[in-house]
Amino acid sequence: MARFKAQDPDFVAAVRESFDSLTLMRTVGARLLTVVPGEVEVDMPFRDDLTQHHGFLAAGVLTAIADVACGYAAMSLMPPGASVLTIEYKVNFLSPAEGERMLARGRVIRPGRTVTVCAGDVLAIVARTEKLVATMLATMATVNP
Amino acid sequence: MARFKAQDPDFVAAVRESFDSLTLMRTVGARLLTVVPGEVEVDMPFRDDLTQHHGFLAAGVLTAIADVACGYAAMSLMPPGASVLTIEYKVNFLSPAEGERMLARGRVIRPGRTVTVCAGDVLAIVARTEKLVATMLATMATVNP
Amino acid sequence: MARFKAQDPDFVAAVRESFDSLTLMRTVGARLLTVVPGEVEVDMPFRDDLTQHHGFLAAGVLTAIADVACGYAAMSLMPPGASVLTIEYKVNFLSPAEGERMLARGRVIRPGRTVTVCAGDVLAIVARTEKLVATMLATMATVNP
Amino acid sequence: MARFKAQDPDFVAAVRESFDSLTLMRTVGARLLTVVPGEVEVDMPFRDDLTQHHGFLAAGVLTAIADVACGYAAMSLMPPGASVLTIEYKVNFLSPAEGERMLARGRVIRPGRTVTVCAGDVLAIVARTEKLVATMLATMATVNP
Repeated sequence: MARFKAQDPDFVAAVRESFDSLTLMRTVGARLLTVVPGEVEVDMPFRDDLTQHHGFLAAGVLTAIADVACGYAAMSLMPPGASVLTIEYKVNFLSPAEGERMLARGRVIRPGRTVTVCAGDVLAIVARTEKLVATMLATMATVNP
Repeated sequence: MARFKAQDPDFVAAVRESFDSLTLMRTVGARLLTVVPGEVEVDMPFRDDLTQHHGFLAAGVLTAIADVACGYAAMSLMPPGASVLTIEYKVNFLSPAEGERMLARGRVIRPGRTVTVCAGDVLAIVARTEKLVATMLATMATVNP
Repeated sequence: MARFKAQDPDFVAAVRESFDSLTLMRTVGARLLTVVPGEVEVDMPFRDDLTQHHGFLAAGVLTAIADVACGYAAMSLMPPGASVLTIEYKVNFLSPAEGERMLARGRVIRPGRTVTVCAGDVLAIVARTEKLVATMLATMATVNP
Repeated sequence: MARFKAQDPDFVAAVRESFDSLTLMRTVGARLLTVVPGEVEVDMPFRDDLTQHHGFLAAGVLTAIADVACGYAAMSLMPPGASVLTIEYKVNFLSPAEGERMLARGRVIRPGRTVTVCAGDVLAIVARTEKLVATMLATMATVNP
């Protein structure tokens, strides 16, 4: 958690303001939880209107919340005024995405001036147990103001 | 197009029936277009409720339609009764996803009994021009009945 | 370390025997170190004949040792007689690969009957400090005898 | 082939000079073949000292030549004096790498000022037939002088 130090003293507000502009996150019912330097958590409820052919949450939905968690983990370490763009990601799907809600945790592996590398996990939460359903390795770009 | 031969004479119906069970595709307004052996196209309109912080379609949405196009391209070559699961994918984002609609094209690169490798592109369509906005390389599993 | 249990009581011997057949590992001077259920370490010295244009170890070399560490981490959990094949991997390069030697650590994230997902890190070792130079996310296949 | 235009009139010489500094390529016996704007070919002979446990060329070796072909495809479009660094790549392995020689073809999918996205294929050549053995999707960085 304390592995990184933010450059922008107002990084939490900057991340929250940007998150609030993501209409996709509102559409899927996602919430921004933890925002600390280099680490962000996002969760969403299971939703019957976002499933694939076996009735589990679709890969693209898990990817979307992992992408946002990783992107804001990267942005939390960027200078004031910067925004973040996803260059690319890879995701492995590990277990069926079923449960009460999904929790995506993004963390910075290697911050950089122009490129930041992040890892993310998506956990399915049932009662109080967690099951890893997807894991992401992502490359984020700094967009300077 | 004619590079591959389907094993299941009813692969078009099987793919269409499976696509119709994807509630996420309905939610984002996606349609299944071309279904030929080893190649599938899916499109969706631009939608203001599926955007990221710059007002473009979010990465997860582009990924979702590319995943479906790749997955059904793989399924089109599978034996009768089989279904498809996404093992993993990697996506590069190349240009802002703006336009009237997005067209995802998935194609099989290497079919296999248990694992099929696919590539997919997402094109933004404005008037009659196409712009490549994302490209995917994906690994799909055969789920035997 | 003790997160997984091996199926094959002789998994260490099986992994070592397979490693010894890898002529590439001999050619680059790599050694197999730790072999425990779901986790394998491989190291190699820095070598001037394996570099890229800035004089650091080339990406393909780091990838090769990470691939072997991940592959044998997967194989350590497979049934007796099985061997492992790399389906795919993604690697991010984080820092220049300079140092006395490189240490690759592979670990299983999700074992499976036919497909196992692994993560790997490559660390550059100088004196007694470690620097993360590359990180891998890989999908391995079980090849049954 | 003529899809892209080089910025550096001497890009062929710049790529060849950089290739000649890659000691790994010399060690594995690779040669630089075609160098045109946005596309580069590299080949190497099959070699018994670079194999994996089934006697095929190891994944890391195929990756190494695909990485070089993609990297120089990217560099061919960069301004004079720039060099290239691999940010990340993903590779799928499609068939056993056996044959007389391996041919890696890298091509630019999307050039950029700081980040260039490339695709690469590795073909096994036997007699005069080609077999696709691996495919890469890669992200390259421009290192300005």
